[in-house]
Amino acid sequence: MPENWSSSRLDLHLDLDAEGGRRARLETALRDAIRAGRLTTGTPLPSTRGLAQELGLSRGTVTAAYDQLAEQGYLTTRPGAATRVAEVLPHLPAQVPADTPAHPPPHDLRPGRPDVSAFPARAWLAATRRVLDRARPEVFGPGDPQGRIELRTALADYLGRTRGVLTTPDRIVITSGYYQAVQLLCRVLLAQGREVAAFEDPGHDFYRDTVCRAGLRAHALPVDAYGADTEALTARTDAVFLTPSHQYPTGVPLHPGRRQAFCAWARSSGGLIVEDDYDGEFRYDRRPVGALQSLAPDHVAYCGTTSKTLGPALRLAWTVLPPDLVEPVVRVKQEDDLYTETLGQLVLADFIATHAYDRHIRAARQRYRIRRELLMDRLAAFPGLTAHGVPAGLHTLVTLPREGPTEADLLTMCADRGVALRGLTELHHHPDSDRPEGLLIGFAAPSERACPAAIDALTGVLAESITLPSARRPRPPQP
Amino acid sequence: MPENWSSSRLDLHLDLDAEGGRRARLETALRDAIRAGRLTTGTPLPSTRGLAQELGLSRGTVTAAYDQLAEQGYLTTRPGAATRVAEVLPHLPAQVPADTPAHPPPHDLRPGRPDVSAFPARAWLAATRRVLDRARPEVFGPGDPQGRIELRTALADYLGRTRGVLTTPDRIVITSGYYQAVQLLCRVLLAQGREVAAFEDPGHDFYRDTVCRAGLRAHALPVDAYGADTEALTARTDAVFLTPSHQYPTGVPLHPGRRQAFCAWARSSGGLIVEDDYDGEFRYDRRPVGALQSLAPDHVAYCGTTSKTLGPALRLAWTVLPPDLVEPVVRVKQEDDLYTETLGQLVLADFIATHAYDRHIRAARQRYRIRRELLMDRLAAFPGLTAHGVPAGLHTLVTLPREGPTEADLLTMCADRGVALRGLTELHHHPDSDRPEGLLIGFAAPSERACPAAIDALTGVLAESITLPSARRPRPPQP
Repeated sequence: MPENWSSSRLDLHLDLDAEGGRRARLETALRDAIRAGRLTTGTPLPSTRGLAQELGLSRGTVTAAYDQLAEQGYLTTRPGAATRVAEVLPHLPAQVPADTPAHPPPHDLRPGRPDVSAFPARAWLAATRRVLDRARPEVFGPGDPQGRIELRTALADYLGRTRGVLTTPDRIVITSGYYQAVQLLCRVLLAQGREVAAFEDPGHDFYRDTVCRAGLRAHALPVDAYGADTEALTARTDAVFLTPSHQYPTGVPLHPGRRQAFCAWARSSGGLIVEDDYDGEFRYDRRPVGALQSLAPDHVAYCGTTSKTLGPALRLAWTVLPPDLVEPVVRVKQEDDLYTETLGQLVLADFIATHAYDRHIRAARQRYRIRRELLMDRLAAFPGLTAHGVPAGLHTLVTLPREGPTEADLLTMCADRGVALRGLTELHHHPDSDRPEGLLIGFAAPSERACPAAIDALTGVLAESITLPSARRPRPPQP
Repeated sequence: MPENWSSSRLDLHLDLDAEGGRRARLETALRDAIRAGRLTTGTPLPSTRGLAQELGLSRGTVTAAYDQLAEQGYLTTRPGAATRVAEVLPHLPAQVPADTPAHPPPHDLRPGRPDVSAFPARAWLAATRRVLDRARPEVFGPGDPQGRIELRTALADYLGRTRGVLTTPDRIVITSGYYQAVQLLCRVLLAQGREVAAFEDPGHDFYRDTVCRAGLRAHALPVDAYGADTEALTARTDAVFLTPSHQYPTGVPLHPGRRQAFCAWARSSGGLIVEDDYDGEFRYDRRPVGALQSLAPDHVAYCGTTSKTLGPALRLAWTVLPPDLVEPVVRVKQEDDLYTETLGQLVLADFIATHAYDRHIRAARQRYRIRRELLMDRLAAFPGLTAHGVPAGLHTLVTLPREGPTEADLLTMCADRGVALRGLTELHHHPDSDRPEGLLIGFAAPSERACPAAIDALTGVLAESITLPSARRPRPPQP
C-alpha cells in the first residue's frame, strides 16, 4: 500500500511495499527518485526532523538514510546547510531482453564436434562428489600454474597407456583449452627468436590464423596420401604443427617414413614439432597408432584435449613438453591467466583415474563407428564422391566430382536445408581453382536421435544435386 | 611368470604378466626393449614366422605387432628385407617424485585471502547436481565469450541488491578472474589510444604491474584519510583504478566528495574509472557503502570476484561495463581464451540465485567480524601501533611507531615464527624513507581453528620487538 508524503519542498512517492526495513525503504525511494530525475541536482531535502514527522518515522531512521545516500554520493551535506541532491546520472534504460544461448542447427554435421548430448553427467557428478568430499582447504586457494599434480599424474598414466606418450607428470602443463596451449607455445617460440611455423595444407585454418596473429609466419606443408610432406620444410622452419594420427581434414595418418623424417628434422635442426592429437582416441577399424611424441619426446610438444571427448565447455587441455620447454611455458601460462580453475581439473583427474574416461570414450567410439558406417554406406550411392582417410575421428572428408555442383553450391543448399557442415576449400592455404573441392562431414556432432535425420538431409541434398554417372552431363569446354 | 626367448639374432625378455593380449604383450616387450636401448638402431628382427614359432604365437599375431611398431616408427620395413629397429631415442629417466601442492604457512595472515577451509562444499555440490540434472546438451558445447546468460542474470540482480550496482545482464562480462578483466580492459584502452592509468598510492602493486606490463603508463594518486586524491589526476590520465569501498591497503572508504569528483572527471574527460570492488561484501559495523558505479554507470567498469568470498581457485569474476565497452571487451575476451569454462559459471549462477551465496557471505562476515575484533583488542596493547581504515574487508593495516623495530625487522621475525603477512612499504609507488612503514594483517586467511594461534604468534613477535612507551628508547640522532 503506497503512501504519499509532501513537504514544503518536494513531493515524493514512497512505496511501502518495497522489501527491507523502513530506513532501507526510505533510502530506496529517495535513490529511485534521484536516479529517475524526479529529484534533480541541487534540490534541497527536508530536514531530518521534518521528514521524520511527516512520515511517522524516527528521526534516527531518516538521518541514517540521508547519511547512507550521502556516502553513496547521491546527496551532498554541508554543516549548517540543507542536505541537497548531488549531481547524479539518470537511471539506466529498462533491462534489455536476456540473450538466449546459441541453438545448434537442425542438422548438425559440423566437423570436430563430439555428441555433447552424451556428456556423462551422472559420472561427472559422482566424480565431483568424491573430489569435494576429500578436498583439502588448499584446493580452494590459489592454484598451480602448471596444473594440478593429481591431473598431471592421471594423464601421464592415461596417455602412456592409450597413446604411447612417453612422459612424467612434471613434463605436462594443463591449459584452458588447446587454443591457450597454441598461444603459449607461440610466445615461448617468439621469445626464443623462432618465428617460422609450418602448417599442413590443407589444415586447420583456425589454429594457423592463431599462430599468425601471435606473430609467427606460417608456410605450407602440402598433404598427400602419406600425410604432411617433409620435403616442404625449409632451413628457416622453426616449428611444425602436425596432426599425425588423423590428419585434419584429409583423415590420413602420417606415414611411418614421414614420422621418422619429421623427428630427424627436429633432432638435426632443433625445431619443435607440435603434435595436435585432437581426436586420436577415435579409431574404428583397429587400435589407434601411437603418438609421434614417443619417437622424439625431447623435440615434440604433444597436445590433447577434452573438447572432442567430453565437450569444449570444460576448457581442459594438456601439453606434454620437452624438458627444456616446461619452465618457459609454465611462466607464460602464469603471466597469461595465473592458473586454470582447480575444481574441473580435480574432477577430470578422478574421472580418468577411476577409468570413467575410458568407459565414456569406449561407448562414444562404438556409437561413432556405427554412425560412420551408416554415413559411408549412404555416400557410396554417389559414385562421383570420393571419401578420404582412415576410419577414425569425428568427421570424414569427401571430395566432389569435377562434373556436377560446386562446393559452394552444395554448402548453400545444405544451409537452406538446415544442414551445417564445412567446405574443404577454405582449409587450403591458397585457395585456387585447381584445389579439390569437398565437404567435411562431422558425424559425431548430432545426438543419437538426430543423427539419421541429419544424414538423410545431407544425402537428400546430394541426390538432388549430383548427377549419376549414367546421366552425367558432358563437361563444358574449357577456355 | 616371465618367459625368455632367444633367436639367432637377439635375446629378449617377454613379460607374460603384462596386461593385454598376446599381440599387445609382444608389442610392449619389443617397444620397451627398443626404448631401453636393448634393441639398437638397425638391429634386424627375426622373421615373423621364426618368431611366431619360437614364442608359440600365431604368425598373424607377430605380424600385427611388427606392423603396429612400424606404424609407430619403431621399426622400419622394406620389401624383401628384414624388419629392422628404427632410430629411436632412449627411454626417459624414471619418473621424478610428484610435486606436492603448496602448503600454507603455519600462521597464515596474508591479506586478501578468505578462509578457504570454510568453502561451502556441500552447497556447491548440491548446486552442481541441480545444474547437471537440468543441463541441456548445448551446455557442454562451445560457450559464450561474454559469459553464460544464467550467471549474468543472477549477477545483475545480486549486484543491484547488495552493492547498488546499476546494470542489466547485457552489460556484464564474465572473466577467468579479475586478473583477466584487468588485462582485457588494458587491451581495449590501448586499442583506443588510451595509455595513462592512475593508481592509488599506496595501492595494489600486483595489478599496477599488470597494467604496466600490458603497455600502459601508471602514475600515482596519493591516498589520504579520504581515499585517493583527485588533485593528482592529470590532463593525460585516461583511466583510474580505484578501490572505493575499502581502499587497498589503507582500508579507508572513498569520501563522498571524492566519489563525486572522480565521476565528474570521468564525465568531463571521457576517462574510465575501474572500480575494483574486491571485498565490498565485508563491512562489519554497518551496511556497506554502495558501489561508485551507480553514480556514473556509463563511465565506470565495476569489477567483482569470487576470489575473496569462495576462493580464488574458481577463477570466476565479473565486470559491469559502460555500454560502449561491452562489445570491444567481449571481442578481446574471445581472442584471449574463447570463453570461460561453462560448468563453474552455471553452478555459481545457481548458487547465487538460490541465495546460497548470500548465506555463505553472511556466515563468513560474522566469523571475520569476531576475528577482527579479537585482533584489534590484541593490537591495542601496543600503543605505538596505529590501526587504519574502517571495520571492513579481509585485512587491517597497522603502521609502526617511529621508535622501535622497522617493518623489515618485523617481517623477518614473523617469517622466523612462521607468520606470513605483508609489509606496507612495497605497496608505495616510490618507496622511500619518509613513507610510513606498516603491516598488512589478513585475519580472514586462517581457518577458524588456526586463527587464534596465528594472532598469538603475531602479537608474540610484536611484544618482543615493540618497546612500550614507558620504556621507550630515545631515537638515535639523525645525521
